[in-house]
Amino acid sequence: MKVCKFGGTSLASAEQVKKVFDIVTSDPERRVVVVSAPGKENDADTKVTDMLIKMAEKYINTGNCEEELRAVVNRFAKIAEGLNLGVEIIKDIENNLRTRISLGYDSKEKFIDRIKAAGEDNCARLVAKYFNSRGVYAQYINPKDAGLYLSDEYGNARVLPQSYKNLAKLKDMEGILIFPGFFGYSLSGEVVTFPRGGSDITGAILAVAVEADVYENFTDVDSVFAANPKIVENPKPIPILTYREMRELSYAGFSVLHEETLAPLVKKGIPVNIRNTNKPEAPGTMIVTTREVKDYPVVGIAGAGGFVTINIHKYMMNREIGFGRKVMWILEEEAVPFEHIPSGIDDISIIIKKQYLDEDKKSRIMERIAHDLAVDSVSIGYNLALVMIVGEGMLRRVGVASRATTALAKSGINIQMINQGSSEVSIMFGIEEKDLDKAIIALYNEFFEKD
Amino acid sequence: MKVCKFGGTSLASAEQVKKVFDIVTSDPERRVVVVSAPGKENDADTKVTDMLIKMAEKYINTGNCEEELRAVVNRFAKIAEGLNLGVEIIKDIENNLRTRISLGYDSKEKFIDRIKAAGEDNCARLVAKYFNSRGVYAQYINPKDAGLYLSDEYGNARVLPQSYKNLAKLKDMEGILIFPGFFGYSLSGEVVTFPRGGSDITGAILAVAVEADVYENFTDVDSVFAANPKIVENPKPIPILTYREMRELSYAGFSVLHEETLAPLVKKGIPVNIRNTNKPEAPGTMIVTTREVKDYPVVGIAGAGGFVTINIHKYMMNREIGFGRKVMWILEEEAVPFEHIPSGIDDISIIIKKQYLDEDKKSRIMERIAHDLAVDSVSIGYNLALVMIVGEGMLRRVGVASRATTALAKSGINIQMINQGSSEVSIMFGIEEKDLDKAIIALYNEFFEKD
Repeated sequence: MKVCKFGGTSLASAEQVKKVFDIVTSDPERRVVVVSAPGKENDADTKVTDMLIKMAEKYINTGNCEEELRAVVNRFAKIAEGLNLGVEIIKDIENNLRTRISLGYDSKEKFIDRIKAAGEDNCARLVAKYFNSRGVYAQYINPKDAGLYLSDEYGNARVLPQSYKNLAKLKDMEGILIFPGFFGYSLSGEVVTFPRGGSDITGAILAVAVEADVYENFTDVDSVFAANPKIVENPKPIPILTYREMRELSYAGFSVLHEETLAPLVKKGIPVNIRNTNKPEAPGTMIVTTREVKDYPVVGIAGAGGFVTINIHKYMMNREIGFGRKVMWILEEEAVPFEHIPSGIDDISIIIKKQYLDEDKKSRIMERIAHDLAVDSVSIGYNLALVMIVGEGMLRRVGVASRATTALAKSGINIQMINQGSSEVSIMFGIEEKDLDKAIIALYNEFFEKD
Repeated sequence: MKVCKFGGTSLASAEQVKKVFDIVTSDPERRVVVVSAPGKENDADTKVTDMLIKMAEKYINTGNCEEELRAVVNRFAKIAEGLNLGVEIIKDIENNLRTRISLGYDSKEKFIDRIKAAGEDNCARLVAKYFNSRGVYAQYINPKDAGLYLSDEYGNARVLPQSYKNLAKLKDMEGILIFPGFFGYSLSGEVVTFPRGGSDITGAILAVAVEADVYENFTDVDSVFAANPKIVENPKPIPILTYREMRELSYAGFSVLHEETLAPLVKKGIPVNIRNTNKPEAPGTMIVTTREVKDYPVVGIAGAGGFVTINIHKYMMNREIGFGRKVMWILEEEAVPFEHIPSGIDDISIIIKKQYLDEDKKSRIMERIAHDLAVDSVSIGYNLALVMIVGEGMLRRVGVASRATTALAKSGINIQMINQGSSEVSIMFGIEEKDLDKAIIALYNEFFEKD
């Protein structure tokens, strides 16, 4: 049994929905289909989810959103017309939207979640209808009926454990199940959404619940690439990579799968197959628990800017039991998550994502470190980027660090930080943000063009 | 004003004491002289401090140590005879030893400290006597009279802050002051010693107290070398290095100065001059606050074995606020100091000196990490050595990491860990213990033979 998830671009037009139909019906194992809301058909287009957010906000601000509602209905209508589904489904979608609005709101976030979820929900209804129109037995599944319960954190929900048992029953249902992604229900019955991109999460949860053989994630790229195609020209596709490799790559800027998507799959060891709706014959990228380590040590290179470092120096720091813990405690009290804490003998650095550190927090943290910990010096460094080379088993190989540092040096890039050894599958370099693209290109050329 | 400290080999024989006399009297600024106990005259010899420990233990075990006492007295007698000091000083030393024994003990450690300190104490008396015999006004200074008060941690004492004010009065005393190293007195009047090698600490404290222009540390080597001469053949001498460089080097195995020695000097910025008693014309090595950074990026290479790592993996670790702190708290509760905590995205390693981790603590810590922190895996790695390349300002230079990692790779050494960026003056490599010497040689050749 396979769970397939289709992203927004795979549902952006009638033509795309037909591709979805062809893909799903070409393999009888494809029994559970998770759909996103229709995305952009072209660059000038607007995603349905964005249209819905605009509609919700307009209604909140003015009490009227007729124009925005019409735009959403028209968007669905265009797809439905292209699929020859008749007018009834359009009426249904319009009524669905009006009902969501008429339910009003105790809180803005609750209202917005209910409206936002309409994109996936109506898309699933439409897709099921289309499958039926083609003579295939398919049914729309409502997440509430199926028992997908989430925490009541609007816009940032997490799945509640009982959902898995509920959803396991989908296995025994007849036909193809069309399940809307992105949202579920709180125990009190309200619509709650995952973070943006959360249809991937829905798919992963279903794959785990029905114990799928594979979770097929259909998107608009042929595969995961060894580096960002916006930075490196024609990067090589990655045929297979492990969860750990994927996770390390996605940390530093790879955005193929939402970070939380992999979590439930990892525990059950269910492989993920990233595939292209527009090129279904391509094998795509498999994400698995373990893989055979081939000749090439590095599987991918990723990087991201937006980090700051707090650098602390205190003579004989390493003799002071509890020093590191006290530093972390200060950060915790300010609710600032840190990424890494490389420490020397008399030095400790704390690497933080810039967005977590506003001016107020920054000055409080600096003052507390200086005062409470009686350090010799504390300073802050900006514009740090992290670049990672990732590959299963590469740290057992002599010379990987040497090749990477030499490639960076030859490109004139000053390495501010190296973090190797904490993870078995990656080496992380801290560099200046301005050097980020240059560094990714240099490392890509070293490990992919030479090998 | 200069404070000079002479180590054990500089006082091992009459001939050596004469050298001390010549050195001290050749410069009128050399006003405070700190002496160790006589060390080995040759390889077959025993250090006086070791003889005294043996004597104390014999007495504790049998109530008699006449033979051992005679050996100590004879050792001093040989030096005194070579200096033509007459028999009176020998009698004094014997009486001094007998008094120390006759005072008995409430505790073993208190007794051992009192006996151990006899080496330095009587050596200082003998040296003062010799200076006088050569017509130079010198006086033995008793640490109690001078007010050198220490915490009552026997064998591991720390200076109490009031000592500095007391010792400052030495500035105003006449003649050359011969001060025994290694020990002081508790507030209750008991002899307490520093850790082994503590005469360096006494010298540093005196240098700070009298605000010396320089602290001259006379030993039996011409200078600090860029690498351990036992590993690298004829390593280059280091003419000047900063406190930070010295501290990083001494952490990883350089044992020129005791770790705690530099601490008081750093605060006052008093330079240290490492010199050779046997070659007083050599300029030795200056240890200073700041130095001009020359062409060569690396000043020294050091390494030490005896580390273990605890490796923890938990999926989505970096999203869990407080995870690192909780790990540290477990270590703190077990009173295990950690050296470094390199962390990846889903991984954290803890590097610990092997001696702090007995089997009991190890299994408790492993169990608590596995259980309390619900990690995916926790494992322990043995036989880790740390190698450091140290040099002020080298991290602003492109290519240092590249040269180092390439040198290690060419020697076939697998780098398990790289720690760069936390300290501004060093890069640390974690390697297998068996590769330690090979790594030091490879790095030395890269940075000193090529440059």
